[in-house]
Amino acid sequence: MATAWQGAKPSPERIFSTLTAYQQTAALKTAIELDIFTKIAEGADEASSLAKGVIASERGVRILCDYLTILGFLTKEQNRYALVPDSAVFLDRRSPACMASMSEFLGSDIGRQAFAGLTEAVRKGGTAMDRGDNTKPNDEIWVAFAKSMAPIAAPGAMFVAQLIGAAERAPCKVLDIAAGHGMYGITIAKQNPDAQVVALDWPAVLEVAKENAQAAGVSDRYTTRAGSAFEVDLGQDYDYVLLTNIFHHFDPRTCEILMRRVLAALKPGGKAITVECVPNEDRISPASAAGFSITMLASTDAGEAYTFSEYEEMFRKAGYAKSTLQQVPELPQRVLVSEKSA
Amino acid sequence: MATAWQGAKPSPERIFSTLTAYQQTAALKTAIELDIFTKIAEGADEASSLAKGVIASERGVRILCDYLTILGFLTKEQNRYALVPDSAVFLDRRSPACMASMSEFLGSDIGRQAFAGLTEAVRKGGTAMDRGDNTKPNDEIWVAFAKSMAPIAAPGAMFVAQLIGAAERAPCKVLDIAAGHGMYGITIAKQNPDAQVVALDWPAVLEVAKENAQAAGVSDRYTTRAGSAFEVDLGQDYDYVLLTNIFHHFDPRTCEILMRRVLAALKPGGKAITVECVPNEDRISPASAAGFSITMLASTDAGEAYTFSEYEEMFRKAGYAKSTLQQVPELPQRVLVSEKSA
Repeated sequence: MATAWQGAKPSPERIFSTLTAYQQTAALKTAIELDIFTKIAEGADEASSLAKGVIASERGVRILCDYLTILGFLTKEQNRYALVPDSAVFLDRRSPACMASMSEFLGSDIGRQAFAGLTEAVRKGGTAMDRGDNTKPNDEIWVAFAKSMAPIAAPGAMFVAQLIGAAERAPCKVLDIAAGHGMYGITIAKQNPDAQVVALDWPAVLEVAKENAQAAGVSDRYTTRAGSAFEVDLGQDYDYVLLTNIFHHFDPRTCEILMRRVLAALKPGGKAITVECVPNEDRISPASAAGFSITMLASTDAGEAYTFSEYEEMFRKAGYAKSTLQQVPELPQRVLVSEKSA
Repeated sequence: MATAWQGAKPSPERIFSTLTAYQQTAALKTAIELDIFTKIAEGADEASSLAKGVIASERGVRILCDYLTILGFLTKEQNRYALVPDSAVFLDRRSPACMASMSEFLGSDIGRQAFAGLTEAVRKGGTAMDRGDNTKPNDEIWVAFAKSMAPIAAPGAMFVAQLIGAAERAPCKVLDIAAGHGMYGITIAKQNPDAQVVALDWPAVLEVAKENAQAAGVSDRYTTRAGSAFEVDLGQDYDYVLLTNIFHHFDPRTCEILMRRVLAALKPGGKAITVECVPNEDRISPASAAGFSITMLASTDAGEAYTFSEYEEMFRKAGYAKSTLQQVPELPQRVLVSEKSA
């Protein structure tokens, strides 16, 4: 939010706006819940008509929309609101790239609960909650993740599919570990009619992935293995094993255990593809990737956003021949490709 | 937070960072609670020494301090943290301008509770909580306010004291309505040894103001009136009546009732001094003042941040001769001076 404290420096403005930053989350969540953005895009652009459209009070809608304008999600001209381009693409439910569903996961009560215990988490070095080891289903969290976070995975999934040359249609066998919504594996299956995809996740989460696979028309080449990635038989002879947003939940020793299991399941010359927030070695840049560690401190026993040198070391110790790093355009995530010796 | 989504526009970055903005509040609150800033200023500038200093885990402290660096409260060079100037002035407990106590009010559970009901508040046009009329003591909130928000009032209080020429030492009688910490009246009393100050607030809140008056050495000219500003006998013949951060809790009709009571208590030619977040007529600038309305929507039945034209109309209807507006340097608040006819 732009400053109103002007003149002399230093200023308490950043402190003030950070201590009230939680109000920004609440306002955007409410606007998405009431579907304010879609209704404005449909033409209800004044507080009075918008209030009727979303079934709310005019006063409440006016104050909310003024605040959304201040935050940069709307514009306001002569009491008419309009969507900025980001909102039109990502918050209008009619947009194919709509990411409004993200608020169900990112703005969830579980996240709030995790951060309510942040002081205790800093003291002990891990979450204050009792489910921080992430080796049990936690359906409440992961089904919400699978149901709401597919849209934000689309660019990363497309990047991975291109990276492994899915469009070249070579027959291949892919294991998608902690598949969630399944979009990574499904995108490969869509681009390559000769790809066989195996999705692994908790039973309730796999139901979401299977629905998405069916909707994408790839069900006939999509099978599942239900359970823990640390316990279930992973199968054999994979060309690629996808490890998307899973390592950040665990300590390095546990990551290495999973990396070894994956190595055994890969065919010679096969590749583990890791998609992760990977901060630079300074651990403070880029902001989105580096800032992710605090979420893991608040919500897991021992997870964080690891740097490339940490990943490289873990994969090396686990027996991989080499690892390389790629930035995913337009997203804070990066992709690591770790090869099994041929 | 700076972007990591680079390249093509539009980007979901603002949506993502807003949906996770509550984490920023939690992190700063935790850092203040653990007194991280003071300990760094005292020389414990690495995660290991800092962890010992604040009695927490090194891992937790490292992740927290990296995040505070990303948010702009610290710098990090070769794993040593240092305070940025804003943090040194306003977050080091040893600094005379320290505002760390603000987090007790701004980051309070009551605020969180109010914003948890924001969707309902937008629907009905007022808070979803049952204490939104602000005509009862609500000690839990207002004692916390009085105890924690004095530091941020200092520049505004100094501005008001100068505005009424307190340093010229003309005998005067001042009523401080909704005195809270009492800093506005106390600052006048400190500058003018011939000023008599009467503070009005709820009984428990006045205890805080009285302590502050004693600490400032002005107790002998500091008296109190306990109760509601709408019911208590305000007294007579005041030169100035201070109305700091009170009108935003009420609808215009209720504000006018209070303005009339104040008018009756002023001597001819006396002045009502209002200190408030006063947005421009567009209601979306300046950001801090305009953004305050959503806090009032979430937490009161009918309050908001009124524009100058709205205040002018209310004071005129209440019988004041004229109102003028002044910006308080370095703060988002503005000061209205409303005169009673001579």
